[in-house]
Amino acid sequence: MYFPSWLSQLYRGLSRPIRRTTQPIWGSLYRSLLQSSQRRIPEFSSFVVRTNTCGELRSSHLGQEVTLCGWIQYRRQNTFLVLRDFDGLVQVIIPQDESAASVKKILCEAPVESVVQVSGTVISRPAGQENPKTEALRLQYRYLDLRSFQMQYNLRLRSQMVMKMREYLCNLHGFVDIETPTLFKRTPGGAKEFLVPSREPGKFYSLPQSPQQFKQLLMVGGLDRYFQVARCYRDEGSRPDRQPEFTQIDIEMSFVDQTGIQSLIEGLLQYSWPNDKDPVVVPFPTMTFAEVLATYGTDKPDTRFGMKIIDISDVFRNTEIGFLQDALSKPHGTVKAICIPEGAKYLKRKDIESIRNFAADHFNQEILPVFLNANRNWNSPVANFIMESQRLELIRLMETQEEDVVLLTAGEHNKACSLLGKLRLECADLLETRGVVLRDPTLFSFLWVVDFPLFLPKEENPRELESAHHPFTAPHPSDIHLLYTEPKKARSQHYDLVLNGNEIGGGSIRIHNAELQRYILATLLKEDVKMLSHLLQALDYGAPPHGGIALGLDRLICLVTGSPSIRDVIAFPKSFRGHDLMSNTPDSVPPEELKPYHIRVSKPTDSKAERAH
Amino acid sequence: MYFPSWLSQLYRGLSRPIRRTTQPIWGSLYRSLLQSSQRRIPEFSSFVVRTNTCGELRSSHLGQEVTLCGWIQYRRQNTFLVLRDFDGLVQVIIPQDESAASVKKILCEAPVESVVQVSGTVISRPAGQENPKTEALRLQYRYLDLRSFQMQYNLRLRSQMVMKMREYLCNLHGFVDIETPTLFKRTPGGAKEFLVPSREPGKFYSLPQSPQQFKQLLMVGGLDRYFQVARCYRDEGSRPDRQPEFTQIDIEMSFVDQTGIQSLIEGLLQYSWPNDKDPVVVPFPTMTFAEVLATYGTDKPDTRFGMKIIDISDVFRNTEIGFLQDALSKPHGTVKAICIPEGAKYLKRKDIESIRNFAADHFNQEILPVFLNANRNWNSPVANFIMESQRLELIRLMETQEEDVVLLTAGEHNKACSLLGKLRLECADLLETRGVVLRDPTLFSFLWVVDFPLFLPKEENPRELESAHHPFTAPHPSDIHLLYTEPKKARSQHYDLVLNGNEIGGGSIRIHNAELQRYILATLLKEDVKMLSHLLQALDYGAPPHGGIALGLDRLICLVTGSPSIRDVIAFPKSFRGHDLMSNTPDSVPPEELKPYHIRVSKPTDSKAERAH
Repeated sequence: MYFPSWLSQLYRGLSRPIRRTTQPIWGSLYRSLLQSSQRRIPEFSSFVVRTNTCGELRSSHLGQEVTLCGWIQYRRQNTFLVLRDFDGLVQVIIPQDESAASVKKILCEAPVESVVQVSGTVISRPAGQENPKTEALRLQYRYLDLRSFQMQYNLRLRSQMVMKMREYLCNLHGFVDIETPTLFKRTPGGAKEFLVPSREPGKFYSLPQSPQQFKQLLMVGGLDRYFQVARCYRDEGSRPDRQPEFTQIDIEMSFVDQTGIQSLIEGLLQYSWPNDKDPVVVPFPTMTFAEVLATYGTDKPDTRFGMKIIDISDVFRNTEIGFLQDALSKPHGTVKAICIPEGAKYLKRKDIESIRNFAADHFNQEILPVFLNANRNWNSPVANFIMESQRLELIRLMETQEEDVVLLTAGEHNKACSLLGKLRLECADLLETRGVVLRDPTLFSFLWVVDFPLFLPKEENPRELESAHHPFTAPHPSDIHLLYTEPKKARSQHYDLVLNGNEIGGGSIRIHNAELQRYILATLLKEDVKMLSHLLQALDYGAPPHGGIALGLDRLICLVTGSPSIRDVIAFPKSFRGHDLMSNTPDSVPPEELKPYHIRVSKPTDSKAERAH
Repeated sequence: MYFPSWLSQLYRGLSRPIRRTTQPIWGSLYRSLLQSSQRRIPEFSSFVVRTNTCGELRSSHLGQEVTLCGWIQYRRQNTFLVLRDFDGLVQVIIPQDESAASVKKILCEAPVESVVQVSGTVISRPAGQENPKTEALRLQYRYLDLRSFQMQYNLRLRSQMVMKMREYLCNLHGFVDIETPTLFKRTPGGAKEFLVPSREPGKFYSLPQSPQQFKQLLMVGGLDRYFQVARCYRDEGSRPDRQPEFTQIDIEMSFVDQTGIQSLIEGLLQYSWPNDKDPVVVPFPTMTFAEVLATYGTDKPDTRFGMKIIDISDVFRNTEIGFLQDALSKPHGTVKAICIPEGAKYLKRKDIESIRNFAADHFNQEILPVFLNANRNWNSPVANFIMESQRLELIRLMETQEEDVVLLTAGEHNKACSLLGKLRLECADLLETRGVVLRDPTLFSFLWVVDFPLFLPKEENPRELESAHHPFTAPHPSDIHLLYTEPKKARSQHYDLVLNGNEIGGGSIRIHNAELQRYILATLLKEDVKMLSHLLQALDYGAPPHGGIALGLDRLICLVTGSPSIRDVIAFPKSFRGHDLMSNTPDSVPPEELKPYHIRVSKPTDSKAERAH
């Protein structure tokens, strides 16, 4: 198949003597993004032969001679074609005169998606000619997919939102855009860092997961306010909706505290938020880690809807129900519940069954469904043991309505909350598949989560500690004494920004005191301090108090555009296996090209053997 | 040594009751950059406790209560100290009252470079207190070096210049900022590309030298106008003043020709140029590759000064001087010369000798120095063979003055030009060490070089061709027929941008026709087309005519700031051996961390043996 890609004959053939029509069909995508942000409209036709973009034509252009460039989107009965560029569509009448026979032939034979340049006079749409329906292009080839309205919208919105962020940071608040290296040293425990062999035998660079060390060194270096739209790398093998390379808005400030960073980010998002969405309302609400866990059973709650977890332990102090009794008799035992609005109307018996099975299988927990409407079956062998006074107290505490269902569980606080947090989301999904709108798709619900624990017990050895986030996080000012007595109880100055149930950012006030940093690394975390000696030394030479944050740009744009996957907001994403399917990446390399790097490929059988060993 | 880095006691101790002085000493670095660019002054003190930056204080602040944060730069006789932040210096009077004894003790004992926060009233400088001299900090530690005025200036200028470029491209001309992958496929012949082992045995990613393929695919994808401040990678081993990772302003446009790209870049540089420099004058002059070679002996001439190469073959058609006769008798033989202004005054006999030795050693060429002043020794055994008429004609052609020296050589055109091009720069350096100002350091002399050859003979096999730049470069429209007859003679649509003798950018109009691209890759270059099948296929699906350019940002900022090395405009540069000396990068990796990547280190002895083999 031969696709001519530039019909210069066409341009000549279509010049002056022939009547042609150009006509707006789409609204202009780009202009709607731009006008709403009250900026000067860019000159899209500077430096090139076209006089206008397709989406730009309006009734004010009627009678004007224009030149357009684009792709043939569609052709109908050899009478007109639809020309498309990044900005919109225009209908072009194919000349029918005998004198233009050669032009007609080319236009009628050129395959769709051929590139053409046309000149002509703008006229109104002839009566009776309908808009052709825009058909979605196939996703088979990324460069064709990029031509789709949605990808054009996503990538252009991303570019503009980042530009506004830069204006806010650079022009309004004096941040310095500084590029930090991506060929760096492996960090302690950096098992997820890609390696880059160097020309020195056995020596490797590492692609860092974030510019964390550099941003702190820049503060020591007196740069005061740093930001970077930073490419970061993480090798997690195959993970759905993750990318081996990703982008974060990376920020660090000197002489700042937690509330300063929070105000900065609130202003940043408000300033850069697309004007075709509802404005961002600031300040964002803040909850502590303990509060979100107790209320939503997760540290990244979706606060667009209620169904909060309620502690109903007091209701059941004198219960006769065995598993509640049992739970409440233990030191941290609680009874917790969530209320499913109109659950009696929308949930089916088998939904309740699968909820109970899920709780049993994944949490080893019992779930008791309570139908508040007395006419209903309580649908559970134990439900009858709930006394009327308990039922009324439950209705009061849970603020339930007649058709609601309460899901009740009992057990250790954290475990009960985690289970109900999961069920809250599962039930929301279920209700929405049944037509209930719980989560308004136009709503953006931000939340700060603060006061995280500074350390967690190590998974592989719970008697040792590891950093809940990273070892440079400063302890909460009220909890510094705990570092020397009960470090497990110390809270940190870490903060997460959550949007609609997704963590879109995280950061902290850092440790700027070398002694404290050494104590945490060496004594509490038992890390090899040598790997970080440059950072510790830098802190010794006068480090300002400082803190920062990183926003996950791909996820943020994904949420803003309402895209199903971050792959929809990245021009050339990798598959979930980390492959570029367009170019067949990664690929083999001839052995002689490995030699300068002093490496050899070990056969899988070798490495399997080694693993077994 | 213990450096307290945050004296919060100091802040409390210094509050209200004590008289303190804050006083501007430096002009404000940042503000001078900003005011000249006529932007709103950023609010450097938003979100933090300080009320002002050090450099901000003016006589208008006298009597105001301010809070400042910064480093102790200097202390004198326990009476005052100098506080420094990124923006400037302020003198702070140390309280001498008995009641403030503890504060005085802390302030007098804190080591310089400690971080403090002070509050106080702004007063005028007391008579008799001199400005302390600002001392350059040692370059031993990068984070300390970054505190220097010059590094702060360079990094802030870089940030602001890039910001202006973004404004020009995004806001004024509708470019879309698109991030392209850096984990990609090895390109054919990509021997300088770093490898990144993947978790699939024997499969590697490659860190690309530029986003070339992606930017073209974006044009096929209808993005129309793309730009990116792109991180690029090149593994050249040890090279002075090169970095393994570097940054380019990467641009691609659809429906554009060479003059369009040139106008865009001229506008871009004019718009983003720092206002403390002379404005950029556009359009830039343009010369062909053949012209610059004949005139300056190089494709990146320093056009800040003359000393152009002149063809004086005609003067010597009837010469009796052997080596000239000899050269002119050959097919491409020429006689060429450059004129060293006031060379007779500034060059010494041993300079002339070393020039002649250089020509003999490196070019196997003879150099004849001609002193135009008849009173001088001609200083050469053959000089007497130059006839008076030839001497007069030489003076006319070369426009020489009495004290000038002409350096004359003979031979094949390209070789003679290359030699004289080198000598032109050598002599300019010599003259400048003797006090002559040839190259005005405030002058920025841009030049477009166009009409490069499309192909060059392969170094290792001159009967085969290789691309002069890259295989996607479009042929010159007038030379397309030559591709099928004499491809060696075809010129390209490549263009270079040269500034003061440095190539700071290069680009081309690309091939957008799949058939032509296939012919050039497969038939002329004998490349394996399979490696590029995705790009060829994309061209088959309707590719707009397109072209682009990349500017080397590090080099550009280096020239703009007058820095001796690109390391002075990069926050954390690598040494010329590719090491990060601060953190000891690259570094060893434990063998078990190599296993997931199916690689092993081969011992140097192995690879030496293999190389020998």
